[in-house]
Amino acid sequence: MKLHLDLSDSCGSARRGSVTTARGTFQTPVFMPVATRGAIRSLATHQMASITTKHGAQIEVVLGNTYHLMQRPGADTVESLGGLHGFTGWGDRHMLTDSGGFQVFSLSPKVTDDGAEFRSTYDGSKILLTPESAVRIQEQLGADIQMVLDVCAGLPATEDVLRSAVERTAQWAARAKRAHRRTTDQSLFGIVQGGDNLGLRRESARRTVELDFDGYAIGGLSVGETREQMMESLESAIAELPADQPRYLMGVGDPLSIIEAVARGVDMFDCVLPTRLARHGTLLTDNGRLNIKRSEFANDDSPVSSDCTCETCRNYPRGLLRHLISQGELTGQILATIHNLTWILGFVEDIRSAISGGTLDALRAEVAQNWASMSPERKDVG
Amino acid sequence: MKLHLDLSDSCGSARRGSVTTARGTFQTPVFMPVATRGAIRSLATHQMASITTKHGAQIEVVLGNTYHLMQRPGADTVESLGGLHGFTGWGDRHMLTDSGGFQVFSLSPKVTDDGAEFRSTYDGSKILLTPESAVRIQEQLGADIQMVLDVCAGLPATEDVLRSAVERTAQWAARAKRAHRRTTDQSLFGIVQGGDNLGLRRESARRTVELDFDGYAIGGLSVGETREQMMESLESAIAELPADQPRYLMGVGDPLSIIEAVARGVDMFDCVLPTRLARHGTLLTDNGRLNIKRSEFANDDSPVSSDCTCETCRNYPRGLLRHLISQGELTGQILATIHNLTWILGFVEDIRSAISGGTLDALRAEVAQNWASMSPERKDVG
Repeated sequence: MKLHLDLSDSCGSARRGSVTTARGTFQTPVFMPVATRGAIRSLATHQMASITTKHGAQIEVVLGNTYHLMQRPGADTVESLGGLHGFTGWGDRHMLTDSGGFQVFSLSPKVTDDGAEFRSTYDGSKILLTPESAVRIQEQLGADIQMVLDVCAGLPATEDVLRSAVERTAQWAARAKRAHRRTTDQSLFGIVQGGDNLGLRRESARRTVELDFDGYAIGGLSVGETREQMMESLESAIAELPADQPRYLMGVGDPLSIIEAVARGVDMFDCVLPTRLARHGTLLTDNGRLNIKRSEFANDDSPVSSDCTCETCRNYPRGLLRHLISQGELTGQILATIHNLTWILGFVEDIRSAISGGTLDALRAEVAQNWASMSPERKDVG
Repeated sequence: MKLHLDLSDSCGSARRGSVTTARGTFQTPVFMPVATRGAIRSLATHQMASITTKHGAQIEVVLGNTYHLMQRPGADTVESLGGLHGFTGWGDRHMLTDSGGFQVFSLSPKVTDDGAEFRSTYDGSKILLTPESAVRIQEQLGADIQMVLDVCAGLPATEDVLRSAVERTAQWAARAKRAHRRTTDQSLFGIVQGGDNLGLRRESARRTVELDFDGYAIGGLSVGETREQMMESLESAIAELPADQPRYLMGVGDPLSIIEAVARGVDMFDCVLPTRLARHGTLLTDNGRLNIKRSEFANDDSPVSSDCTCETCRNYPRGLLRHLISQGELTGQILATIHNLTWILGFVEDIRSAISGGTLDALRAEVAQNWASMSPERKDVG
């Protein structure tokens, strides 16, 4: 199903709007938390669903990892339990699955024109993932949006390596498009590669658009380049993407990269950052990062953020969070995850408001001040 | 503050009623989950507080472990953050702290008339816990009910060992009673020892009652004896305890032991069993234990219990729980913990109803059939 961006406001190249799928509608820009194995690491689905910002924003889209789900519990099992929505209890909100490619390429697979063969990190068995099998598996998983299998090269990389990734990505994208059957209730996104080579980015974007996908992602970023290189590559790709369809920057989720990508016309983001940082006791606040493990917080009876309305800030003092996280208690991760997800939802909500209000540049300056030191993150497990 | 049992119904020796403290009122019989370090292992306080059975029962009392809290974050820190209630965000419901003695005695401490000296499992430092320091620390922690420091002997034990434990427990109880200052808003419970020696149980109970405590606990059970020995020892102790005060059986929480102890006049229970079993994928149901990791549940789209109204049973198929717990995902523990706590609250609620309805014997027979094979549990960490 082809997706369109219904634009409500814009500010320079930044867009605010909504995307309507077979399931319903989600607002953009949108941040999608990563539910690696069908759940984010420390919140059950119903707990994740109850997270609400002070202005009422909730999680609208969640990402599941095909690499993990296809092996455990397996696509057949997920399908028999009603697809990811039935399996995870995510109700009537949206889900997106990646193709598994990003994880597979981190395992140094044997890549041929056919597909990528890798050894499972679960049981050592050999698995061949092809453009067609990635589509079929994701049809079984049944998310609202699925992604083509692409070739992602780490950076820095030679032009030859990047060109070959673009070439194979284009061939695989065509095969994925032909293989996709579940076209009435599921959308298939193409992925732009090209690394930090601006010419290749444009070429990859053009070739992907020629295949006429339901939406477009920019992949192969946040894999070793600087934020400046990332933004240049992004601009080159976006220049070739249709204005009326959603654009998704894969795996990038630090606040400064998000707002800078939005300013260049990106609509969708996923990242493990808020959940992974939470597990290590790093809390996101309007003033930047806060390492709750520091001893100065031991007797601190104030909440993490005094103007945050999340369950963590409403109920618990910093001293408790410091104690629980220092002692490795799971409840510390739970409370930190609730706060960080609430914060990033509120952050993206602020970006949407700034687009509508024409104040995005002021917000960009503020975010740059608080977040420039945090590098873009890209890791396997959310 | 002296606590009384306000009896509403009885059935044989079993009592149903309520206990009113400086903070409020809780119903009995009551099951108290163990929040080891200020939180149960996989639910934040507000998540634990929202657990509700189909008839509306919730957790009314939670137990915190002094051994852990006195070392991390320390009693001073907990006190400065408003005591355990402020620290944990447990609102206006009840808390009880143990004295730390049970954990200390599992570390083979050097015991003198003065107290018990042990090496900390946190940092190896030497710590002396005395009857007076246990009271003082628990005053700082600020729970509604605190326990005296007692001497708990593992079973089987010689009569000499049991007699010496009874003797020292009595001396320490007298010192604890004298040391207790926070008498207006905190209750101090004495503890009956005596192992499986019925004469010593009676003697220990008499001597504890002579000291006139705010309530009475039976300790030193579920430490190696059979359930039959436990029940005989319990009867001997209870025979000497005042009828109008609450009776608390420490650390015992398997369903059959709970209902058999209730039938003998016990009002309060704590145990790590529902939370610890949950972490290992053992779910409590009206038909007995269910090991969710078994392969037969992989594609099972039914809930754990079809007539259970907990968040887990309302939202998730067995197949998901099996997957999450098999993969070691924290969310699996979370969902299993929600179910097990809901189940045991409902179980104790059923016991209260059976007392009122005069049907306790029928329920005992049913419980014996489903739960006889589960042994009483007693472990350090909840």
